[in-house]
Amino acid sequence: MSATLLSSLPFEEFVSLMQSIDTILTDCDGVLWLENFVIDGSPETIDLLRKMGKKVYFVTNNSTKNRNEFLGKLEKMGFTASQDEALCTSYLTACYFQEIGFKGKAYVIGEKGLCEELQKVGITHPEIGPDVVNTGLVDLVGGFKKDPEIRAVVIGFDLHYNFVKMLKACSYLKDPNCIFIATNTDERFPMNTENVVPGTGCIVAAVEKCAGRNAVKIGKPNDFLREVLIKHHNVDPKRTLMIGDRGNTDILLGTRCGFKTLLVLTGVTSLEEVHEWQKSDDPEVRKWVPDYYLDRLKDLSGLLNKCICSTPDSTSK
Amino acid sequence: MSATLLSSLPFEEFVSLMQSIDTILTDCDGVLWLENFVIDGSPETIDLLRKMGKKVYFVTNNSTKNRNEFLGKLEKMGFTASQDEALCTSYLTACYFQEIGFKGKAYVIGEKGLCEELQKVGITHPEIGPDVVNTGLVDLVGGFKKDPEIRAVVIGFDLHYNFVKMLKACSYLKDPNCIFIATNTDERFPMNTENVVPGTGCIVAAVEKCAGRNAVKIGKPNDFLREVLIKHHNVDPKRTLMIGDRGNTDILLGTRCGFKTLLVLTGVTSLEEVHEWQKSDDPEVRKWVPDYYLDRLKDLSGLLNKCICSTPDSTSK
Repeated sequence: MSATLLSSLPFEEFVSLMQSIDTILTDCDGVLWLENFVIDGSPETIDLLRKMGKKVYFVTNNSTKNRNEFLGKLEKMGFTASQDEALCTSYLTACYFQEIGFKGKAYVIGEKGLCEELQKVGITHPEIGPDVVNTGLVDLVGGFKKDPEIRAVVIGFDLHYNFVKMLKACSYLKDPNCIFIATNTDERFPMNTENVVPGTGCIVAAVEKCAGRNAVKIGKPNDFLREVLIKHHNVDPKRTLMIGDRGNTDILLGTRCGFKTLLVLTGVTSLEEVHEWQKSDDPEVRKWVPDYYLDRLKDLSGLLNKCICSTPDSTSK
Repeated sequence: MSATLLSSLPFEEFVSLMQSIDTILTDCDGVLWLENFVIDGSPETIDLLRKMGKKVYFVTNNSTKNRNEFLGKLEKMGFTASQDEALCTSYLTACYFQEIGFKGKAYVIGEKGLCEELQKVGITHPEIGPDVVNTGLVDLVGGFKKDPEIRAVVIGFDLHYNFVKMLKACSYLKDPNCIFIATNTDERFPMNTENVVPGTGCIVAAVEKCAGRNAVKIGKPNDFLREVLIKHHNVDPKRTLMIGDRGNTDILLGTRCGFKTLLVLTGVTSLEEVHEWQKSDDPEVRKWVPDYYLDRLKDLSGLLNKCICSTPDSTSK
């Protein structure tokens, strides 16, 4: 399988591709914006997709914001969206708990936005934020008494993650019946800095290593999102296009879920990497190869405009 | 390969085995003691081994103590040892730096004992202990300026491990020339508690995930110890017996290094697990199977006493 430059498709094929799609899922950071800077032309391209009658969902692995805060970020960056179009892992994690019928108390390594979404579905938790270590190891370990009501551990991004939080999470996870959820497994947090900012995946790796168990993972590239889209949003995976900037999250999600996939080169993955993956002997790595790629999302605009002008019936599905 | 109950060996075979060994490496926690309680008969057994002329080395993955503190722990538990017989990962890590000719500055996630051993071989480091997070993510990330003199990252057990330490370590490791060392990869810290105490391996897993690089690992089951024993202690691996309580650290170390191996069942690994490993299709797992096992180290005493009485020439090598 090899990736096709979308703008090199014969125009009729492009039209036909667009006609075969009802739903667009788009990653945000690296596609629509870079940290706090909108990528030129992205809002207009999303508008054009909607003008063609496509339903657009915004998907992010970020777990620190609740759904309304994520909408706020979208709006600040120039995108209008309704609540049901904003799919962040704080919300999706709450969906998962609903799905399995879990209410009650969870131990959360995470931030406020995640907790707020959990609370909406009836999940309470001990206080989050700093959990200061001010004794030696023996007192720290001896001083922690498990809350018998806690029957789940949830891990998201947490600036205040530390040794004692890891100890608590793993102590709860010693009970094999304790549910174990991770919002996502991103290695790094995308920020425009010389420094390297660890992502949720690092916290998850540590807790999994200690607990000797694997978490249920919610965010991209895990296919729980597909279940939510089918069940709550009536989405047909075969008529869905996933747009992203990362092979091993966005595109892999699309491949796993049976979506069509479009990689834009404004984020993490480079075209050189795609070419490497195409040649890989590992079938898992080949799942990172998109169906299509473009230098930037904006490059879709011209094609879409031409489509809208030449085929007036394509403006509605 | 299958494990033999050492006490079931015909006596002449046992004598012959003991005659084929000059050096004993023994793990501590789970073999000699359990946390702060000596395992009955262990000091006497070690004394008998010495009486037979065996050189005994005490080996621990613990990185929190310096070599003298480790000697103090041995003494408190009833074992006399000289400094060169006490092999802890703080010391071994310092040996590694000497081996590669590195002096200078390192970023250390670890405790005092590790730092003291590093200082002895000319390695300095920023202050250890709590590294408090008292700003938001953006200020935290923006506020950290790398020290250009730091050209190595060392990870050991650290009660004050937290997000910002992970961020700093990974930011240094972004430079591919920055050396990356882990004292050990133990998942859990052995403590007699209902709670689960994360070990150095959890911290290492997180930093490796974020940095996208693997650390050089010093402690068991890595064979750096063999190099130290050969180079600094004139030990012949073929004439060495490794005694331990864990298949995937102590026994694996022995298998990798060409030592004979003896598992005692007073610690982590059970005989049932050994039987499972024997049947495994995975050649790596079969490396966890010891040559011999005993219920406890003390069971060696009777055999050794009989040996000493019946073969007076075996009291010296």
